[in-house]
Amino acid sequence: MSRFSEPQHPVFQRLNASVDFDWRLAPYDLAQSRAHAAMLAACGVITEAERDELHRGLEEVGTELDEGRFDFLPDDEDVHMAVERRVTELVGAVGGKLHTARSRNDQVATDMALFVRAHGARTHDALWGAMRALVELAERHLDWPMPGYTHLQRAQPVYLSHHLLAYFWMLERDAVRFARVVDAADRLPLGAGALAGVNFATDRQMVARELGFGAVAENSIDAVSNRDFVLDYLSAAATCATHLSRLGAEIVLFSSEEFGFCRVADAWASGSSIMPQKSNPDAAELLRAKAPRVAGHLVALHGVLHGLPLTYNKDLQEDKEHLFDAVDTLDLCLAAAQGMLETISFDQERLAAAASDEFLAATDVADLLVRRGIPFREAHGVVAGLVRRALDRGVTLSELSRDELAAESPALDEEFYEVLVGGRWLESKVSEGGTALERVREQLDRARKALGEE
Amino acid sequence: MSRFSEPQHPVFQRLNASVDFDWRLAPYDLAQSRAHAAMLAACGVITEAERDELHRGLEEVGTELDEGRFDFLPDDEDVHMAVERRVTELVGAVGGKLHTARSRNDQVATDMALFVRAHGARTHDALWGAMRALVELAERHLDWPMPGYTHLQRAQPVYLSHHLLAYFWMLERDAVRFARVVDAADRLPLGAGALAGVNFATDRQMVARELGFGAVAENSIDAVSNRDFVLDYLSAAATCATHLSRLGAEIVLFSSEEFGFCRVADAWASGSSIMPQKSNPDAAELLRAKAPRVAGHLVALHGVLHGLPLTYNKDLQEDKEHLFDAVDTLDLCLAAAQGMLETISFDQERLAAAASDEFLAATDVADLLVRRGIPFREAHGVVAGLVRRALDRGVTLSELSRDELAAESPALDEEFYEVLVGGRWLESKVSEGGTALERVREQLDRARKALGEE
Amino acid sequence: MSRFSEPQHPVFQRLNASVDFDWRLAPYDLAQSRAHAAMLAACGVITEAERDELHRGLEEVGTELDEGRFDFLPDDEDVHMAVERRVTELVGAVGGKLHTARSRNDQVATDMALFVRAHGARTHDALWGAMRALVELAERHLDWPMPGYTHLQRAQPVYLSHHLLAYFWMLERDAVRFARVVDAADRLPLGAGALAGVNFATDRQMVARELGFGAVAENSIDAVSNRDFVLDYLSAAATCATHLSRLGAEIVLFSSEEFGFCRVADAWASGSSIMPQKSNPDAAELLRAKAPRVAGHLVALHGVLHGLPLTYNKDLQEDKEHLFDAVDTLDLCLAAAQGMLETISFDQERLAAAASDEFLAATDVADLLVRRGIPFREAHGVVAGLVRRALDRGVTLSELSRDELAAESPALDEEFYEVLVGGRWLESKVSEGGTALERVREQLDRARKALGEE
Amino acid sequence: MSRFSEPQHPVFQRLNASVDFDWRLAPYDLAQSRAHAAMLAACGVITEAERDELHRGLEEVGTELDEGRFDFLPDDEDVHMAVERRVTELVGAVGGKLHTARSRNDQVATDMALFVRAHGARTHDALWGAMRALVELAERHLDWPMPGYTHLQRAQPVYLSHHLLAYFWMLERDAVRFARVVDAADRLPLGAGALAGVNFATDRQMVARELGFGAVAENSIDAVSNRDFVLDYLSAAATCATHLSRLGAEIVLFSSEEFGFCRVADAWASGSSIMPQKSNPDAAELLRAKAPRVAGHLVALHGVLHGLPLTYNKDLQEDKEHLFDAVDTLDLCLAAAQGMLETISFDQERLAAAASDEFLAATDVADLLVRRGIPFREAHGVVAGLVRRALDRGVTLSELSRDELAAESPALDEEFYEVLVGGRWLESKVSEGGTALERVREQLDRARKALGEE
Repeated sequence: MSRFSEPQHPVFQRLNASVDFDWRLAPYDLAQSRAHAAMLAACGVITEAERDELHRGLEEVGTELDEGRFDFLPDDEDVHMAVERRVTELVGAVGGKLHTARSRNDQVATDMALFVRAHGARTHDALWGAMRALVELAERHLDWPMPGYTHLQRAQPVYLSHHLLAYFWMLERDAVRFARVVDAADRLPLGAGALAGVNFATDRQMVARELGFGAVAENSIDAVSNRDFVLDYLSAAATCATHLSRLGAEIVLFSSEEFGFCRVADAWASGSSIMPQKSNPDAAELLRAKAPRVAGHLVALHGVLHGLPLTYNKDLQEDKEHLFDAVDTLDLCLAAAQGMLETISFDQERLAAAASDEFLAATDVADLLVRRGIPFREAHGVVAGLVRRALDRGVTLSELSRDELAAESPALDEEFYEVLVGGRWLESKVSEGGTALERVREQLDRARKALGEE
Repeated sequence: MSRFSEPQHPVFQRLNASVDFDWRLAPYDLAQSRAHAAMLAACGVITEAERDELHRGLEEVGTELDEGRFDFLPDDEDVHMAVERRVTELVGAVGGKLHTARSRNDQVATDMALFVRAHGARTHDALWGAMRALVELAERHLDWPMPGYTHLQRAQPVYLSHHLLAYFWMLERDAVRFARVVDAADRLPLGAGALAGVNFATDRQMVARELGFGAVAENSIDAVSNRDFVLDYLSAAATCATHLSRLGAEIVLFSSEEFGFCRVADAWASGSSIMPQKSNPDAAELLRAKAPRVAGHLVALHGVLHGLPLTYNKDLQEDKEHLFDAVDTLDLCLAAAQGMLETISFDQERLAAAASDEFLAATDVADLLVRRGIPFREAHGVVAGLVRRALDRGVTLSELSRDELAAESPALDEEFYEVLVGGRWLESKVSEGGTALERVREQLDRARKALGEE
Repeated sequence: MSRFSEPQHPVFQRLNASVDFDWRLAPYDLAQSRAHAAMLAACGVITEAERDELHRGLEEVGTELDEGRFDFLPDDEDVHMAVERRVTELVGAVGGKLHTARSRNDQVATDMALFVRAHGARTHDALWGAMRALVELAERHLDWPMPGYTHLQRAQPVYLSHHLLAYFWMLERDAVRFARVVDAADRLPLGAGALAGVNFATDRQMVARELGFGAVAENSIDAVSNRDFVLDYLSAAATCATHLSRLGAEIVLFSSEEFGFCRVADAWASGSSIMPQKSNPDAAELLRAKAPRVAGHLVALHGVLHGLPLTYNKDLQEDKEHLFDAVDTLDLCLAAAQGMLETISFDQERLAAAASDEFLAATDVADLLVRRGIPFREAHGVVAGLVRRALDRGVTLSELSRDELAAESPALDEEFYEVLVGGRWLESKVSEGGTALERVREQLDRARKALGEE
Repeated sequence: MSRFSEPQHPVFQRLNASVDFDWRLAPYDLAQSRAHAAMLAACGVITEAERDELHRGLEEVGTELDEGRFDFLPDDEDVHMAVERRVTELVGAVGGKLHTARSRNDQVATDMALFVRAHGARTHDALWGAMRALVELAERHLDWPMPGYTHLQRAQPVYLSHHLLAYFWMLERDAVRFARVVDAADRLPLGAGALAGVNFATDRQMVARELGFGAVAENSIDAVSNRDFVLDYLSAAATCATHLSRLGAEIVLFSSEEFGFCRVADAWASGSSIMPQKSNPDAAELLRAKAPRVAGHLVALHGVLHGLPLTYNKDLQEDKEHLFDAVDTLDLCLAAAQGMLETISFDQERLAAAASDEFLAATDVADLLVRRGIPFREAHGVVAGLVRRALDRGVTLSELSRDELAAESPALDEEFYEVLVGGRWLESKVSEGGTALERVREQLDRARKALGEE
């Protein structure tokens, strides 16, 4: 019997009910209920026979869910109520004992923590897949020169492998972040009750062990108020999605006729409803487009928590859809990134042609002067003069005459022309982490090691 | 026949397909297709018989949709393809003529504009409902004194009607904003083709008239790139949701035992899973919690459009879910706000007791001194001294003795005590828009006029 | 004398004081104080002689501010206090009468409304400048063909003028939005007092007229709580900045060696600290980069207002820096956009070469078949087959033989080759708003009209 | 000599120059330049004498900066240029050698990493201060009962110490997050050059050791593109600011006359410009109001990075102001939180009175029935009936008669009345992390341990 004299308004029910989305928590709700019942029995709050009945009911609900036979009813406000209602139908009045020494407040916080732990680990694995695809792609294109850009202007040539591995290290940092998300959800909320703890000497450590938590939440008020681990997942997801947006945007760019560097496989491209010649890199565009969605979820949850009084407020129900959509979006994006990378093809000639632009060696010419004792800042000025001359005359740097060189600096001699011979500019970048082939090979070793050992 | 040699990868299909959410555009897609076919016939691009066949097919699709008989198939990438596919099944090859002189790019922009117009108008109407509820509530509590707060400290008393009407004017501004959203979606994109216009001398004005647009988009590139009207809806929605969050937060606050000013009807409240005595204002909490969600959608769409090259990019598909969820969220919030306001009850005694705090008359005492020629800044200091004395002695202002008054200022005489007689402090706020009853009545007249005439 | 027994903590002062940024409100604060004093005298609350003294003080403060002689003191918490303090120094105790019938709550709301009105109008004018630059640039490049893109793939050719005018219409919508921002700040808050109105029968209409407001705020509580007009400015600014980010991103793209379509003038470009050959389109990159900053301000202010109780809370102080930075950012971006557009140069040959790609005529070939009675969807398939053949053989469409055409469709005859003669594809886009030259000329007329008449 | 023929436009200079804000990087720029010069000499790229000259110049610049004598000139585009310019003035042409084997791209990334490391550590320390204040405050109010709330409705009583410690654990998680931020900035970018590495066999490990980095960035492209560590700082800061917003909001709430639970010290409160009686908790309001600002910076930087091509783009300049303002905001908020907590006073009587509401024992009554074998769900219903009776009759629970109890359940006997004796409800929450005094003492031990040992 409720203390309310009126039924809920249908509009309120639509606003209030969460079962349309929180059904996804069902497996976690079952796992925690199983552990909770086991603990209640171990502590003597319920009998072993009652525990067995509850376990039987929970198992049957699990089977119904797995087999798609579980019916959510109109009056099931949320997944917790639906599960308890069904358990009670299956095992009778003892089902009403499941909620002993537990509140929906600590229950939902525990479900969310379990969900974040499971999905943090899954996202971590999905990153592994994309990272492997990058390493393999880099190995297949180890010594293909391409222009490196700054400000989207050709700057210095690099190997395609080196460029691809830049994304590897971004995703590697993401993987570290998701490992920490799993840690962040490692304190068990269950046992906090509504907010103050419960009236029974329960054994939270036992539940924690059973459910794989490393510790119990130290403060019952914090335990039911805390959604930091959801923020942590969303933040890691937003950074990862931003990385993928850069990858997607570069694939779109490199797929343009003007760049012509790569081509997304047909299995990852779309045609046009009106222009039969088009092959559009839709998957890459969507990688780009999804990042703001995830960042939007992050900022929204910060908004929900902003200024919120402690313990449970209904506002906390707004953590779920943001998290669930971020999880689904990131899963899909990572799978798409991996699939696209596994099948993308590059155009060696177009890349090489773009990389052979002599202006890309300007820094190298300046460094030649530096080796002759000219301060870099001055050498930079000399080469700027050469570039200006070449542009004015419409020639390449190597087409400048000895006299023109001399007019800019007496230190410019024959070696100037040697510096401009193709390929040198890449192999001269010998500093650690640089694009010289030897350095890229070291980097690939480190990448493989990161994948193999983490 | 497609120009692609490979089928789409299933992950790509999941990422790329929009039919799971853009089915909501179906009524708009049908309306535009009907108008488009009529125009094609009028311009001689198709025959009248072909038009009639197309209209027949579209009508049948509409019926199937209305009756829940329309089957979306796995290969229906989006609602546009689904509708065209079904029309062609129903009327044969002539269905393939529907896409003449049209691209999905201008088609989807037109569907979105129609959706925004329709829902901008609906939201406007929903605001009307909530505004009416506020006016009626204000009328029912016209002369109930309550404390007004600044910094959540009691500041000066006001009438409850006056406080409630503050929300009226917020929503009235929202209504103006949504009227402008409808205007913002008033230029027809259709006819822009993929991006450059179409190869037929079509009559866009005719389509515009048919669909109720005020004008045609002036530039075909802009027409397919533009989603300003979606930003406009989201921005208006975010502001409205922020207003409702303030209303929700105040209801939560006023429902606390400590304030005890109001009580949400049982039909809009929830119990606790563990604490039988609780009546929680969940609906009000959710009004508060939903605003960041809408603002999140707004900032996400800004992110999607950020730096996007012109004309259609697949990224634009990310306009839909943000808009649809914002529309649904705001509809539900406005309905809930209206319902809660229609049934909320206030506690006259608690309000009056809180409003009778004599410190709330401090400004009035200062203004008494001002009328006697003392500069306000000085008068303010005198009253601060009185307040300090009263607090130190633990008495009310009117319990201060004549000697104590004199110690602070010779200008304080018997009238001091008169100012402190209850009720005067409200009725003295006679400036336009102030809380004096006569002013509130004027305000109610203006509110009713705004509702009746807009 | 304050009622406080302790001085403020220095950390609190740093957190609390706003004078470091709200000094920008000084001109508006002076204007409102002048109007307020005039009204107080007209209503008999102060004498005419007092008003003249106050006006003299305010004028002197204005002069000091204009001449950079005004000293803000450490104890000036905000601009309002600083001005009143200085006025009192200049005219004596009568300065203390300035705050009669006014509170900082309605005072700051009024300053902010004045600021938004002034800057809404200024931004509107700055948009005019950029729009004029676009029209002139379009006129200078009226008939220069370039490729139009969808999904960043070449799709159909357009005239450069047409492409540029797409930005014109975006900014035109922005201008409408800023005109509405000015309207949104058109109700005078002053006279609302702290929250409840004031104890004097003031004449708010007189102040409104004096300060150029169209009306007075209807409800004193709403008047001091309302920051909608700031949200409106920020929302209009975010949309405008997003438009500019698209312009900036396209200039960056078109400036790449691969596209080679345009070149930012040296006055708007940067060199490299290390690569002497570089000319980087930094201004365009910054146009792109500034949009999220403005959107960040918008979402932050929504956050500040989220769930905030009515009337003035100190949180409202957080409206200022967000607004001020958005104003400055947008001003700078609009000036930079205009300056860059006035001096940018395009490469006619590169554009034309890219536009002559025959695949861009694929839709036109399909429409040729449509004119012969083949449903568009079927025609689309035929042309897809032609494209596939051409790509497989590495030839252009016009290099396909009559036999190859016949193999795809009997309806393909000599006219096929005529369609592929350069230029036709642009001029065939004759629909209203399309890229045919006649249509672009009409569009330029409309644009000039919009500029001239608004 | 530059390769540019025109000077920069003044508007472009304003848009482009960063020295107005990046001067804050000066100490980090000097440290890295010192380490860089030492390494260049160790590798034989410059002589030891040149190194000494450079070190002398850098030291002098450091002194000038410390003493406020350093003049930034109008042409100093950024802090890097300003420092190099001044060093060259001080030591002559050898100053031009400082930029050998370095680009502004890796230089600025290194400065930012150093800044993040330094400020991540500082923020961590500031958290320590606030955490200590919380522990001390909790110790001083160990056994003061107060109501705990859910949905802002009184739910179950807790000790004030327990409530305060909830904030301790939030900040403790924040401290962990900032420790990880420091880790995230632990890979040295310097040596990546413009993007590809440098033309000299430099010793990046030496520089890393010198500057305290744990490792060198593995990939030169990633090194100059990467701003993850800034996102990490902003994300940690946003979460911390959100925590502080909850603290601030509760202090505001508890300071209201209606709650009357606490009072902010005068040193942290403000008066009113018009209402002399007011003492406003401005510092607490500003804690609440600042969180959206930090979240706004986070979402803005995600926006800047969204879809950005690799290596350095000028857009990355937009990382600085977001970071700097977040750092300053959080520093100020943490100092204010600590200061406010150190001086806040609570009202034991008001807290106790609110906590003695008998309805707060409803769960305990239900659990009494549970102990007698009644399933919790059923017990919950019984107590709901009791609550309803008490509310209907306007009595407390303990005023219900034995007959009334019997009417709800035969299991309700004398012990019912014992449960309702004050204080029991707190001490019965004996589960780990609960509010029973023994549990709070354990918690305080853990908190002290966390502070002492971390």
